Amino acid sequence: MTLGKTKTKEEVIEALHSVAAEMHDKMLKGKPPAMTLPVRTKKNIQFDKKLQVYKYGKNKSTRDATALGSARVLLRSLHITEFIEDMIESGKSSTLREMYYISEGWGNGKFGTQNESNNLAEDLEIVTKCIREDFKLRPEEDGARIIGNVTFEEKNRKGEWMRINCRDDVGDSGYGVPYNVESEKLRLVEHDIDFVMAVETGGMFDRLVENGFDEEARCAIIHLKGQPARSTRRIMKRMSDEWKKPILVFADCDPWSFRIFASIAYGAIKTAHISEYLATNEAIYLGITADDILAYDLPSDDLTKSDLGALESELSDPRFATGWWKEQINLMQEIGKKAEQQSLAKYGLDFVTDTYLPEKLAALGLKY
Amino acid sequence: MTLGKTKTKEEVIEALHSVAAEMHDKMLKGKPPAMTLPVRTKKNIQFDKKLQVYKYGKNKSTRDATALGSARVLLRSLHITEFIEDMIESGKSSTLREMYYISEGWGNGKFGTQNESNNLAEDLEIVTKCIREDFKLRPEEDGARIIGNVTFEEKNRKGEWMRINCRDDVGDSGYGVPYNVESEKLRLVEHDIDFVMAVETGGMFDRLVENGFDEEARCAIIHLKGQPARSTRRIMKRMSDEWKKPILVFADCDPWSFRIFASIAYGAIKTAHISEYLATNEAIYLGITADDILAYDLPSDDLTKSDLGALESELSDPRFATGWWKEQINLMQEIGKKAEQQSLAKYGLDFVTDTYLPEKLAALGLKY
Repeated sequence: MTLGKTKTKEEVIEALHSVAAEMHDKMLKGKPPAMTLPVRTKKNIQFDKKLQVYKYGKNKSTRDATALGSARVLLRSLHITEFIEDMIESGKSSTLREMYYISEGWGNGKFGTQNESNNLAEDLEIVTKCIREDFKLRPEEDGARIIGNVTFEEKNRKGEWMRINCRDDVGDSGYGVPYNVESEKLRLVEHDIDFVMAVETGGMFDRLVENGFDEEARCAIIHLKGQPARSTRRIMKRMSDEWKKPILVFADCDPWSFRIFASIAYGAIKTAHISEYLATNEAIYLGITADDILAYDLPSDDLTKSDLGALESELSDPRFATGWWKEQINLMQEIGKKAEQQSLAKYGLDFVTDTYLPEKLAALGLKY
Repeated sequence: MTLGKTKTKEEVIEALHSVAAEMHDKMLKGKPPAMTLPVRTKKNIQFDKKLQVYKYGKNKSTRDATALGSARVLLRSLHITEFIEDMIESGKSSTLREMYYISEGWGNGKFGTQNESNNLAEDLEIVTKCIREDFKLRPEEDGARIIGNVTFEEKNRKGEWMRINCRDDVGDSGYGVPYNVESEKLRLVEHDIDFVMAVETGGMFDRLVENGFDEEARCAIIHLKGQPARSTRRIMKRMSDEWKKPILVFADCDPWSFRIFASIAYGAIKTAHISEYLATNEAIYLGITADDILAYDLPSDDLTKSDLGALESELSDPRFATGWWKEQINLMQEIGKKAEQQSLAKYGLDFVTDTYLPEKLAALGLKY
């Protein structure tokens, strides 16, 4: 996969045509058309030590047209190919939900559930080595918000490049990251920051903004909005690669937030075919840690049964296979507690920026 | 309640002090301090025919310090008063979640759950006739996004007024509405639109934006993000009042979307004390209607049991007590179907802007 290099329209269309051509060739030879894909389950996920991200393993499954279900999938791939080609020609894009409804007109190729259409879009990414953005398909999820002294250029609907500084040209809610953050749509122009602070909750994002932390600490603040969208992970990866800035993740102390970090740093199962393109291996988990719950005597809640199960499964997850993570997870199991970022407010609204973050950053050698 | 007129800091502090003063007076007279509030449940909600919005009825409940639970509420009110005063003095604001954690330091006044702190903030709105924005308290919910040729001025963190045109000065994700849209924070400067189109789903918002519907139809498009935040309802109310523009609501055809419309047009139970300030009585439900499901032969899903229950309860809801709504609800019950906005994609990505919306708008006398 040639990542980093944006594909031209022609390259994307060619890649899609080659899927159809392969089916056609097989049929000419009297063989049933087929499509071979990696098995996309947790069992076939391997930690790629060289790339330091999760990738699919060697297990493959083949869909050939001798079975009805597989034939239907192949038919759908051809319909999607046509649909994507139309969008590329007409400069349109579509939500995955819209594609699901558009399939109403595809006869036997009609999707039964949206899950089927989402999965097939990902399958096509794998076989064509393109990305969803090349296909002009987008999710409905909201992108991140960014505040700080960084300047982007975004290509607007009229094809003009708009220059937006995420401190001076936006309101309090910040710059809204679009779904496509590839270089054809978004340019990282300039910055005057020392690091990027990715924040899990909106309340904490707003706190850091109100307290002027972006200026004080010379950073860009990103609101992750829970499990981050692809565009959010991708823009952090680009800031890390192009600006060589550390990405620090500031989240709640609970097993689900640890997974947010893991997906940022090492990738996620559903997008393992493009992990090296979405995951920022250099990302650092800043807090809240189990240590912090004790050190700062934070208000905490008891771990639920499902929290405990998630922690247990993280202990066997290669993404958490470091001494530091094992210690943190073991400590959480021991104290049986979790805590939210906003629990720092116990000590007042300024504690997080006056005390907590300076202490945590100093421990990383980032002084301000 | 003097709505529309922004209160000064001094007025807000005075209003809060009067709550404390009343308690103090009672104690001086040897009586237990008390606070009287309207009962804030569905049973005590009445449709105010003059204002055409939902308001609290005549049932009151009194909390006096002779019961432990009530005494605790009064204690908390005093702590909150002090906390709000501090924020006003220092130019800060706080999330409701932060206030919950801050109460850790309030001894017997500590909140047990966040629900308690949220409710008390609303109670204080009622007794002081201030609004949450006056108290510098804000929710964590995301505000709306707006795209279109409207210009706002937002006061930024440095106290400077920033001018933002929601078509020319923003990226594809639009202008993010801040939590406080009162005149002290946001000014409606100028516009060149004929109406406001409030859209339920992000997918449809993006569709209208990509298709250039805002320019084509001369409108501002607002993404409601499901059940709209207070700031979203308030900014629509202001656009309706100050610019005299119709607010059209474009949502899914299901009972929950009808409730979104009702909260925009007539108010919601939790905020019935400020309905006339949040609700835009002139708002019009554009679609998707049950009629549309049939007329456009839209892909639809069967109504679930809980959908049917919600429809049934809407039939006895004064907000839906018009002939038109009754017809629509009855028709839905009859066909047993619901449909999403994005199901219009069955006919292609342009159908909504080329055919559906022009036809619906023409029926309202809005041609473009």
